This record gives sequence, structure tokens and C-alpha cells, in this order.
Amino acid sequence: MKSKAEFRDVEIGVVGLGLMGSSIIVSLLLTGHRIKAIAPIPEDFEFAASRIGDQLDLCRRLGLIKQSFELKAEQLEITRDYRQLKNCGLVLECVIEDIEAKASVYRKIANEVSPEVVIATNTSAIAISALQQFVPHPERFLGIHWAEPAYATRFMEITCGLETNLESAEWAFHIAHHWGKEPTLLRKDIQGFITNRLMYAVYREIFHLIGNGMASMEDADKAFRYDAGSWMTLMGVFRRIDFMGLKDWAQILTSILPNLGNEDNVPELMQQMVERKARGTQNLIGLYSYTQEEAKAWDDAFALFNKDIFQLAAAYPAGKLEERNKNASVI
Amino acid sequence: MKSKAEFRDVEIGVVGLGLMGSSIIVSLLLTGHRIKAIAPIPEDFEFAASRIGDQLDLCRRLGLIKQSFELKAEQLEITRDYRQLKNCGLVLECVIEDIEAKASVYRKIANEVSPEVVIATNTSAIAISALQQFVPHPERFLGIHWAEPAYATRFMEITCGLETNLESAEWAFHIAHHWGKEPTLLRKDIQGFITNRLMYAVYREIFHLIGNGMASMEDADKAFRYDAGSWMTLMGVFRRIDFMGLKDWAQILTSILPNLGNEDNVPELMQQMVERKARGTQNLIGLYSYTQEEAKAWDDAFALFNKDIFQLAAAYPAGKLEERNKNASVI
Repeated sequence: MKSKAEFRDVEIGVVGLGLMGSSIIVSLLLTGHRIKAIAPIPEDFEFAASRIGDQLDLCRRLGLIKQSFELKAEQLEITRDYRQLKNCGLVLECVIEDIEAKASVYRKIANEVSPEVVIATNTSAIAISALQQFVPHPERFLGIHWAEPAYATRFMEITCGLETNLESAEWAFHIAHHWGKEPTLLRKDIQGFITNRLMYAVYREIFHLIGNGMASMEDADKAFRYDAGSWMTLMGVFRRIDFMGLKDWAQILTSILPNLGNEDNVPELMQQMVERKARGTQNLIGLYSYTQEEAKAWDDAFALFNKDIFQLAAAYPAGKLEERNKNASVI
Repeated sequence: MKSKAEFRDVEIGVVGLGLMGSSIIVSLLLTGHRIKAIAPIPEDFEFAASRIGDQLDLCRRLGLIKQSFELKAEQLEITRDYRQLKNCGLVLECVIEDIEAKASVYRKIANEVSPEVVIATNTSAIAISALQQFVPHPERFLGIHWAEPAYATRFMEITCGLETNLESAEWAFHIAHHWGKEPTLLRKDIQGFITNRLMYAVYREIFHLIGNGMASMEDADKAFRYDAGSWMTLMGVFRRIDFMGLKDWAQILTSILPNLGNEDNVPELMQQMVERKARGTQNLIGLYSYTQEEAKAWDDAFALFNKDIFQLAAAYPAGKLEERNKNASVI
């Protein structure tokens, strides 16, 4: 495995400078990389510098930047010229979720970098195997899916397509650790990725309960905030099962799992949202109602909460708990 | 609705003084109630005082007790005599998950209190409607399901049986707020309660993914800790959907929900756990492996984490976010 310094020396290209691309650039700047930021559309080129500057400012206010950090001019180049990618050891694509747009970007990237350079997509909607066919030397292509905001979350999904070689995936897995992430490495291409898949299972069940008048949307939110939310960040799913002692599983296997909702009917409530073009806090039409001020308040709270939960998760590293408990004065 | 002072004046009976009963008593003592603690078995009578004392000590070390709090002797009576319940305005049953044992306890409680006094069970395994038939005047019987540890969690499920009158349920809902909880009120008796139901849906899907070699148990735990765990405590499920902007729902409804795992087959991994009588951190046989020290470290970490997440959740009250953001200096 390479050393930290070797990883830091990898120059990284980021193509697509929207909110997500900018936030990824900030995360990479903070871990010491030099970045070639490619703006595939004029709008990205116009706004990228101020977006990145705003996010760096937010990081500073949230206390996510070390005192010693100073952004040097040569660390970041924003350009429309793909030729600037020529020295990059990794190129991340973060453009819109449109196969044509992505295919065009991959061809331009591949023209400039050598065939072994890893090209990765941040898509959360399109199968890696489907995109892979548009990439010359597809074996070096994979998914690196960041969680928003990229500089304040530890989550990262690295996903192989059918043709991805494991060597590229493992290299991505290692450099992700260098970025301070806790990556998962999915060896097969899962539609919807792992967390999304698991949350869809939750949605199906809760719509089943709501549809039958057994619970409300508000009940589900409270249950997740205060019950699941009271252990999720510490334990995840399986460690929680262990922690609870597994004693109810015989009953769960025989009597509850077979009774969960299986219907393929579209949930009425969500069908309505699709028809009304609801975008929640983004256009004030959603499952809950919002004023402009309330929507803004949720945005601000999310930024603050991310900092808090990021630090909280860091204080409870699985496998280093004894150390953690020793350092905590109250136990 | 009654005032805080009126709720505080309600004397409460707690029957069953194991870990859960003791932790509930501590929570109620901290909100000012007088408690009649009934020990249905000799072991409970022998250990209750020290269990409650230990948990109060832990609360003190975790900073969950106000400086001004002082436990007065008359606030807590531990006894084996059900007649001490006669002035109670609410009785909580927390004995083992055994229908016979619970039925016997309900008869003894009902002998001592008037017919309108609410009797509630903390069961998480038996249907409220099934237990209700053993309670004289069953309309005042319902589920009040606490999360562990009761004094450091906000979650509470209030569940009606078929015969429960809504007035009793609403009274329980209001007094739960007085206890500082964020209760859900389920008007129908759901097998497995709401959070459990939703988590079972997660289990089914993840076993489907693991069974097909698409993800590992460790992947699922990371995904939940660092992805779902980065917003769960703040938002719950539906508000998160709003926050993400709902734009992917058309695709989710048509292409992902119908493809989730529907199989009723018992997950092999969990079948093995049942056969090996695995109790996770409690007997060191589990999904993960544990030494005695590691199991202890998880116990201690959970206590600490509960304090932290409790305070974190309190800092982000839904609906009061503007105030919260104003008080936070960084935004």
C-alpha cells in the first residue's frame, strides 16, 4: 500500500463544478491534493471559483479546517481545457445525471490521460456497467460516490462495474482512506447503491403502514429520529443486532419477516409528489409544508448538524472503543 | 390539557424491577414523580435498590441530572405488596415477555386501583390486543414502550389495542411529553411496533444483498453509520426526502421499488445465529466476534453515546431551527 505522502502527490481532475463537484474539490484540497477543475459548461466556469470559496469559508466557520491550512494558488486550476488533465492520476466526473453528457465527458478525459489512470463517476442514478461502455479502457472505470457535503461526511461508496478490475477498485479504496473516508467497496454493480437500497426497503414498509392507517408520516420520522437515530451513528445495523442480544430472532424469522408489505403498487402519496413536481425544501412543495425561511433554516441546520455528527462519529471509532472510554472522564 | 404540575403529581406504579423497570423508574424520578416500585419476584426485590442507585449514579456522571435534583426517601418505595398501588394514577408493567406472567400481574394491579386508572405494558414482543383481554376494564390498557436507557432516550411508542379508548391513549401521550419524550401514538396494534417493522424491512433487503454477494455485513454497517447516520437523528425519513428534493422519485417508483427482495426464505446467517443461541455482546457469540473486554467497551460506549446523541438531538428541535441557527455562532 502506498504511503500518505504518495497519495497526496496524486494530482486529481474533477470534471463538473456544480455544488457537488465544488464540495468534492474542497474535500480534496483539504487533504493536500493539487486539483485540475474542468468546467464542461460555461455556467460552471463562471461560478466555480465563488462556489469553492464559499464552501471553504463554511468549512472554516465550522472548524473543519486546520489552523495551518493555507490554499496556495498553484493547488487549484479552474479551466475549460481538458488538456490540463494530462498529469492527473485520477479523474472524477460529477456532471449531470445524463448518459449522453457523461459519455461525451469520458471521451474527452480519455483523450488526455494514459490508459491506466482511474476515471470515476459520482453518479447515484445510473449503473456503473452502463456508463463503463463509453470509457476507453473500461477496466479502469468505477463509481466513487460521495455524500453531501463531501468535506464533512465520512461515507463513500466505491462500486465496480462488470468490467472494472479489482486493482483499480482497491487503489480507490486506499486513497479514500487517505481522504479520511470510511469507504465501502461494492464488487458488484447494485442499482441504487447500498444505503439507497436499504432506505427504499424502509420506504416500501412505511408506505404499507401508512396506507393501512397504522402509522403516520410524523410517527415514522419520530421513530427514526429518536429511536434508530439514538444508535445508528454508533453501531450500524448488524452490530446493533449483536448489541441487542439476538434473542428475538427466532420469532422475527418465523412470524414478522414473512408479514412485511410486499406490494408492488406505487405509493399514492409519492405518486402525487411526482405529479406536483415537488422538490421539498428546494421549491417549498413537499411532504411537509415550508416557508422560504423554514427551508433556509433546514439548510443551515444541516450544515451545523453535519459538523456535530461528523465529530461525534469520530469520537466513537469501532475497534478503538476501549481507548475512547478511557479518555472519557465520566465512565 | 393538564399542566406540568398536575402531571408531576401523578403517583406512578412500576411493576417489574429488572434493568428496564429500574431505568424507567430513574427517568420518572428525574421528572418529579413519586413511585411505587413493585417487585413481583424475590430477585427484583433484592437487587432493585442497587440497580436504581447505580443508574442514578450513571446519570449523574453523564450530566443528565440537574444540580438541584435530590432524591427524597418518600419519592420511592420498593415493595412486594401490590396494595401500595392504591393511590397510583398510572401503572407500568415491565415484567418478562410471557403472557401468563403478565396476565397474573394485571389481575393483581386491577385489584388495587380504580377502573379508570391507566395500566400500560412495556412489551416489545406481544400484541397489545392479546394482552388486553387479561385486564379488567380493558379500555384503559395500552402499550407504553420505552427505549433503553429510559432516562437518556426521547423515543416512546404509545400503542392502542383493539379495545383501548382514545382518551386513555391521549392522556398517555400528554404525560409522555411531560417526561421529556417525543412519543408516537399508534392507533392500531402493529406487530413489532413501528421502528422494529421498519428495521425488519432493512434486514430483509440487506440479507437479500448479502445472499447475492452484492454487499457484506460490514458494508451495511458502514453505510448506516456514516451515510444514514449523518442525517437520521436530524431529519427522520420523510423530512429527508423533502430535503433531498424528491427529484429521483419517478425513477424510484417505477424501477427500484418493484425490484427489491421479496423472498420469504429465512436468511441463512440469522438461522445459524438462532441455532447457536447467539446473544451477541451478551454471550460473545454474534455476527461479529467479541472478547469480554470488547463487549464491555461497547456497553460503556453506548452509555456515553446516548448522552451525546441525546444532547445533539435536543440542540436541533424540528420547528425551532431558526432559533437554533441564530444561537449558533458559526452560521
